[in-house]
Amino acid sequence: MRLLLTGFEAFGGDRVNPTEAVVAALHGQVVAGAQVIGAVLPVDAARAPGAVRALLDEHQPDAVLLTGVARGRAQLALERVAVNVQDAALPDNAGRRLSGEPVVPGAPDAYLSTLPLPDVLAAWRAHGLPGYVSNTAGLYLCNAAMFAARHHLGERVPCGFLHVPANEWMALDARPGEVLAYLPQAEIERGVRVALAAVAAGVRAPA
Amino acid sequence: MRLLLTGFEAFGGDRVNPTEAVVAALHGQVVAGAQVIGAVLPVDAARAPGAVRALLDEHQPDAVLLTGVARGRAQLALERVAVNVQDAALPDNAGRRLSGEPVVPGAPDAYLSTLPLPDVLAAWRAHGLPGYVSNTAGLYLCNAAMFAARHHLGERVPCGFLHVPANEWMALDARPGEVLAYLPQAEIERGVRVALAAVAAGVRAPA
Amino acid sequence: MRLLLTGFEAFGGDRVNPTEAVVAALHGQVVAGAQVIGAVLPVDAARAPGAVRALLDEHQPDAVLLTGVARGRAQLALERVAVNVQDAALPDNAGRRLSGEPVVPGAPDAYLSTLPLPDVLAAWRAHGLPGYVSNTAGLYLCNAAMFAARHHLGERVPCGFLHVPANEWMALDARPGEVLAYLPQAEIERGVRVALAAVAAGVRAPA
Amino acid sequence: MRLLLTGFEAFGGDRVNPTEAVVAALHGQVVAGAQVIGAVLPVDAARAPGAVRALLDEHQPDAVLLTGVARGRAQLALERVAVNVQDAALPDNAGRRLSGEPVVPGAPDAYLSTLPLPDVLAAWRAHGLPGYVSNTAGLYLCNAAMFAARHHLGERVPCGFLHVPANEWMALDARPGEVLAYLPQAEIERGVRVALAAVAAGVRAPA
Repeated sequence: MRLLLTGFEAFGGDRVNPTEAVVAALHGQVVAGAQVIGAVLPVDAARAPGAVRALLDEHQPDAVLLTGVARGRAQLALERVAVNVQDAALPDNAGRRLSGEPVVPGAPDAYLSTLPLPDVLAAWRAHGLPGYVSNTAGLYLCNAAMFAARHHLGERVPCGFLHVPANEWMALDARPGEVLAYLPQAEIERGVRVALAAVAAGVRAPA
Repeated sequence: MRLLLTGFEAFGGDRVNPTEAVVAALHGQVVAGAQVIGAVLPVDAARAPGAVRALLDEHQPDAVLLTGVARGRAQLALERVAVNVQDAALPDNAGRRLSGEPVVPGAPDAYLSTLPLPDVLAAWRAHGLPGYVSNTAGLYLCNAAMFAARHHLGERVPCGFLHVPANEWMALDARPGEVLAYLPQAEIERGVRVALAAVAAGVRAPA
Repeated sequence: MRLLLTGFEAFGGDRVNPTEAVVAALHGQVVAGAQVIGAVLPVDAARAPGAVRALLDEHQPDAVLLTGVARGRAQLALERVAVNVQDAALPDNAGRRLSGEPVVPGAPDAYLSTLPLPDVLAAWRAHGLPGYVSNTAGLYLCNAAMFAARHHLGERVPCGFLHVPANEWMALDARPGEVLAYLPQAEIERGVRVALAAVAAGVRAPA
Repeated sequence: MRLLLTGFEAFGGDRVNPTEAVVAALHGQVVAGAQVIGAVLPVDAARAPGAVRALLDEHQPDAVLLTGVARGRAQLALERVAVNVQDAALPDNAGRRLSGEPVVPGAPDAYLSTLPLPDVLAAWRAHGLPGYVSNTAGLYLCNAAMFAARHHLGERVPCGFLHVPANEWMALDARPGEVLAYLPQAEIERGVRVALAAVAAGVRAPA
């Protein structure tokens, strides 16, 4: 079994992205009997969706866990839905600011996650990891990557997005006076690993 | 021109719902040359979608503005999307707790708002009313009402949802120690009126 | 009876300070039989405490209500305490950044408000105005003004601080994507007026 | 050198208090050459201040670090000040609800922390631990314990309070829909240990 795990490069002035280090740590490992294929996506609206599609075509994964960081969130979060809109005050790393463009012109308005969300939540709980299902992935690159992947895959391959909080380095780098919620990088990595195992189990024994 | 304006009855232990009073105040009025037809929806997952469809069929409105209260929000908010999922810790007023059921089985995953969102934001700004576009309407009755309406109407009639903050009475009723964001009821009503006028203008001069 | 009411000029890049307009509106008015003397304080750590003392000496008020804006707060708030420390990431309007200096060297660590806090809360509630008692006024100019006034006055003259939320113009000016809690300026002014009346009543009939 | 480290028992319906486990882990250990004396305080307004005084008299510590949990906070926080007021919507574990009583009748309005706050912040940063100085310890038992200790000790023994976020078990126990900020218990314990070492270093080499 092959699990595609993606993260993102740093953006928005951050020096690090916790998901980049998670991908580096888990790429090539075997989690719950499945081979993890890690890849870091560019924070570039013109390139990220195509990069996702290329990874899907090349690796033909059995399940896909896309990850990104959501500054200000306090717990690990599975995204419920990706919408066909891009809109953000923050430009991407190529300097492009999106305001309303679809991710895939002509595609449906949105796609729900096809990951086994309750299974991941239960696995997190069993491992002492609080987490929840978020109802918006924002309208920046994270949402676009999930939308592009879901549109490309259809229903046949479990696919969804996991947002992680800032890590300690982002919190230490925050602007003076900002008390940023964070989790230690090691805890973030543990949370992604547990999620991958639950996703792998779901592929073996679909609901 | 006929504008359908809906609100909701109180729920979750609240004694009032700001949108119920807004509907009472605006029903039968003429806003920007359009007749406002007001209706209050039940906070009952089994009945609300059907109630919305019945209103649409009966009144054949030229545009639809659904409204509800979002406790804890600080400004008026237009919802960007309604998803085909119902899931909430809080039971509805009939005591039913939803956990993952679709609003309309077999329907698409989500619908985007067909209201002229930038026009409403601009009208609010011109009237000194801060507001924004929210990317999640939650998974309670508000989302379900918008989903049901959009599914019933298709693209032909502008339709969307406006969430208002708590009003002063909800803030005064909050539990001890809770500093709930609120807007005065008169300000909420003004915000809905300005939104209705912008929606009516959009019907006359579609983008 | 004379009530001293102070506000502050704008700071931190804001174009307005809601309390400056409140002071302009209420200066010279009679509230609950008391003459309101309004004054706007500079956001300058080197000058504000002296300006407060000069106002107290010149006007010999029967009670003192200092006001300022607290960006991000959602309701009117009476401050419980002012501490003898100045410390803020944001420089004052003279460009000076404070990091730990006392307001008055050698003075006590802190002073509690001598305003009739429960009476003001009750008056607000009776007028449909949510509000609360805050346990920190921050360590910027607001806290310093209250500390300087309380140190100068001792226990003999009721004196305290009222923080107001941002108004609509600050919310409309916020950075893209920031949903700033606010109250309409007219509501803020009403809240200060009701507080002044409760303070005046407390001077006439001390607890 | 002897360092007194206190925590609190669980309260408010929580099944655990992260500081109770921290005290159990660190009691009897040597941190930076100092002996740690751990003690758990009762969440009982009638007993906690006396319990603090008894510990100070019995152990004659060279420095005092009081700790407690602050539900909803996102990082470790040193408290700057304790005020001579008790007031909380939540009753204590003996069922007593406080509303305005002083901690020590006739004592000053407040005491500032005498811990080397910048040293602890610097030590945390050096160990990858985000943290900050909070300007309010609330008006519940945490504040009362710090006030009682500072009043008893005067300036001669460094003494202050450290608030920790919820841990994973509190976050997992939170009410449905509540996304509570938390830190893993192991991270909280590490943060307290690093703070104790910085406090011990400050005793050896006062500023």
